[in-house]
Amino acid sequence: MNIIIRKAEASDAKSMMGLIKELALFEKAPQEVTVSYEHFVDSGFGENPVYWAYVAELLNLDGTKVIVGFALYYIRYSTWKGQRMYLEDIIVTEEYRGKGIGSRLINQLIQVCKDSALKGMCWQVLDWNTPAINFYKKFPSVFFDGGWMNVQMDT
Amino acid sequence: MNIIIRKAEASDAKSMMGLIKELALFEKAPQEVTVSYEHFVDSGFGENPVYWAYVAELLNLDGTKVIVGFALYYIRYSTWKGQRMYLEDIIVTEEYRGKGIGSRLINQLIQVCKDSALKGMCWQVLDWNTPAINFYKKFPSVFFDGGWMNVQMDT
Repeated sequence: MNIIIRKAEASDAKSMMGLIKELALFEKAPQEVTVSYEHFVDSGFGENPVYWAYVAELLNLDGTKVIVGFALYYIRYSTWKGQRMYLEDIIVTEEYRGKGIGSRLINQLIQVCKDSALKGMCWQVLDWNTPAINFYKKFPSVFFDGGWMNVQMDT
Repeated sequence: MNIIIRKAEASDAKSMMGLIKELALFEKAPQEVTVSYEHFVDSGFGENPVYWAYVAELLNLDGTKVIVGFALYYIRYSTWKGQRMYLEDIIVTEEYRGKGIGSRLINQLIQVCKDSALKGMCWQVLDWNTPAINFYKKFPSVFFDGGWMNVQMDT
């Protein structure tokens, strides 16, 4: 299995959106994906990007390539910790899980943090998502913090 | 009481940092504020800002001015919802709470969302912080979402 991890480009957007919808289904909330494809492309690959991503690309023996996962982040500013990476989504398509692709994506992001002087990564996980929690526990210096509620307001 | 809400400037940074430390004490975690003052100023008021803020400024009768609160945000990218405002901190110093200053700050941010085509605001609240939860409930279309854990990793 020949998989490379590389920076996402605009031409990956369609595959990435497919994986986002797959994850929303797994998280039991497919109707919550309301972002338009144009806004997704412009926000990451337009003139003023507000997110960045790395993809896992499978190279098939016949020369074709397919995106089987990605990790997408933005810069968060914490008034306590300063600039940190916020991991918005990490997704590996179901068929390719358990093969170390997620770890390679996370390790790539750790490298980006080091190169950009971001002092840490943070993200959220659903408290019932045991496979994801166990996956994250494999990394050194990871810690979990409960007791918070997310608040949202439409404007 | 003459209070204006205005965009924060670099010269407000010292007062803002004082309020950040006051809030950390209230949240029982003063030792968690590890960001340097220089990083705070550069991240908000340097060449490539990653956050923006509005301050509540009290004008005293003798002509002196004092910052009694602020709200600080950055742009979050949600793969489900697109670009949204993430409210990192909203603080009003204890003596001036209950006077509508927090509401004025939130209303200012709602206006910023509308002007910038950000489709919503989101933030977090500690589940034991009843005064804050009751304050947020006053705004229309606010909803609370439990069941998530925050995950952090030092890099």
